[in-house]
Amino acid sequence: MSSDLVGPVHVIGTGLLGTSIGLALRRHGIEVWLSDTENDHVRTAAGLGAGVPAPAAGRAQLVVVAVPPALTAAVVQQALASGAPVTDVASVKAGPLQALTGPVQRYVGSHPMAGSERSGPLAASAALFDGRPWAITPHSTSQSEVVELVTTLARACGAVPVPMTPDDHDLAVARTSHLPHLMATLVAAQLADADPSHLALSGQGVRDVTRIAAGEPALWQQIVAANAPALRDLLSALRQDLDRLIVALDHPAELTALLDDGVRGTRAIPGKHGGPALVTASVYVAVSDQPGELARLLADVGDSGANLEDLHIDHDPGRPRGLVEIVVAEAAADRLRRCLESKNWTVHR
Amino acid sequence: MSSDLVGPVHVIGTGLLGTSIGLALRRHGIEVWLSDTENDHVRTAAGLGAGVPAPAAGRAQLVVVAVPPALTAAVVQQALASGAPVTDVASVKAGPLQALTGPVQRYVGSHPMAGSERSGPLAASAALFDGRPWAITPHSTSQSEVVELVTTLARACGAVPVPMTPDDHDLAVARTSHLPHLMATLVAAQLADADPSHLALSGQGVRDVTRIAAGEPALWQQIVAANAPALRDLLSALRQDLDRLIVALDHPAELTALLDDGVRGTRAIPGKHGGPALVTASVYVAVSDQPGELARLLADVGDSGANLEDLHIDHDPGRPRGLVEIVVAEAAADRLRRCLESKNWTVHR
Repeated sequence: MSSDLVGPVHVIGTGLLGTSIGLALRRHGIEVWLSDTENDHVRTAAGLGAGVPAPAAGRAQLVVVAVPPALTAAVVQQALASGAPVTDVASVKAGPLQALTGPVQRYVGSHPMAGSERSGPLAASAALFDGRPWAITPHSTSQSEVVELVTTLARACGAVPVPMTPDDHDLAVARTSHLPHLMATLVAAQLADADPSHLALSGQGVRDVTRIAAGEPALWQQIVAANAPALRDLLSALRQDLDRLIVALDHPAELTALLDDGVRGTRAIPGKHGGPALVTASVYVAVSDQPGELARLLADVGDSGANLEDLHIDHDPGRPRGLVEIVVAEAAADRLRRCLESKNWTVHR
Repeated sequence: MSSDLVGPVHVIGTGLLGTSIGLALRRHGIEVWLSDTENDHVRTAAGLGAGVPAPAAGRAQLVVVAVPPALTAAVVQQALASGAPVTDVASVKAGPLQALTGPVQRYVGSHPMAGSERSGPLAASAALFDGRPWAITPHSTSQSEVVELVTTLARACGAVPVPMTPDDHDLAVARTSHLPHLMATLVAAQLADADPSHLALSGQGVRDVTRIAAGEPALWQQIVAANAPALRDLLSALRQDLDRLIVALDHPAELTALLDDGVRGTRAIPGKHGGPALVTASVYVAVSDQPGELARLLADVGDSGANLEDLHIDHDPGRPRGLVEIVVAEAAADRLRRCLESKNWTVHR
């Protein structure tokens, strides 16, 4: 077995993740077989170009199990019987492994750190994994060729492979994914029964904090339950911090110390592509609603030599002009501002 | 006194908010006077174009107090002695009002729902308030002309005025701003001492949940302390929900019910500009790193007739191609995809 991924790759479960994997592999022309207990989902995924319905017989080069977390272990077990190497993309890794019986050398768990508030094949995207971390979690008896094959799968999907043990993975995602999800849920739940007139004051902050709480409850229940031991410890620690916070409301120095811990935490998160976080600055440009204005602006940004890091558009249907936020490295912002002003754009700091 | 805002507007406190108000008013040519206990900040703000240093004498049409929360009441009191109408932009409204003595008919509190993780005049922007809610909080003896003048100020800064009582305001921001900030802080604090290798799995979710926790601790300590009564009730309610959550880890139906409450909460937040939230879809396009490519893409998007809602760029310095996410109304996505494909763009779902 080579670590070259040539296919066929058999994707079992054509929801958001499975279909996105199919779409990503098809970019490279790799043959993809699709199956799902819902025939409709297979048809939809195939129609989108994620692969073809799996044939009744034949062995895949790699089976990717992308079914709901509660079903993962059983489907991995079944897939191992085909004789092919098997991975899965479930969000918890120690549990499914423990549930497997018999030889498991051909199984290497994995977990792409990508998702969406939306679910199902129609929400899928070939770009879902681009630049995202993808945990590769071999166990003590995993064959090194299978580890390499699954690592190649992650790369072929555009992701950045991150090797770790199943136990480390579960602790890591409890902290970086499941705990944030549950806290977003609790903050959002406080809004559910609020006076609607109060919610008129909602700004970008509360939108960002609560966004992921829109995720599908039935799926997240399974994810959270499967990682309950790691989460129970973290939630208990957070509960202690919350008690400290309630007391600290009347004690400026302690409150400031808690807020300082939060700032340290935001700085501990690595930059988007694993490198150090880039310090950026924004240049705001007013753009009229006429066709072609945005393209003209982008051409001028390109001519200035600035490397565009990101761009946001804020246009209110009730206004004649939109506002474009151009994000560049902090050191490049002043020069870009001057360049655009020299071309008669209305530039705000 | 007319509700026309002609100036001079005297901005006391040239930090992020005060300087941004000056910049926003100068867009309309309104005369702005700037003062601050730090002369350096006044010079910086004036240098950015936010106004001119306040003259030693003379009465402004309106005084805007934009000093740290703990100093607000004292500076408002002083400003009222000038005989001019006065507003402030502090994030808590009932407390400063109670601290005032003497006649307060010329005082109307207000609070723009805009900010940044950064602070100081150099982080200011004329666009900071564009499309954002700006609470206007008259008290029982506020003169209606002053209410109108402060409402005009909010509009001139590009914001959407939202009238409410000081008490309602404080309850509203406790829920929509201060509680989210504190929970973002607690989640971020859990990252501060984590194994750095675990943080390699950080995805967009944890970045969004924790972003606002990067705000300046000294400022947020004052904001939170000033709204302690409303926050204590909310934090206690959240603590009860957290206890329920810890128990629910082992009870699927109750855990799902809690997650459902979170989904309801995310749906309760109104759309960005107060209207209903627009259902959007994303079209992903691969764009090579050559100059002008992005401008050509935007020109083609414009030609397709699609109304661009937002646009994100994800480019990894290590890759030859970037990925552009074009956000449009869901109903317009398929047509845009076909248009771009017909012009030979590589479009991903």
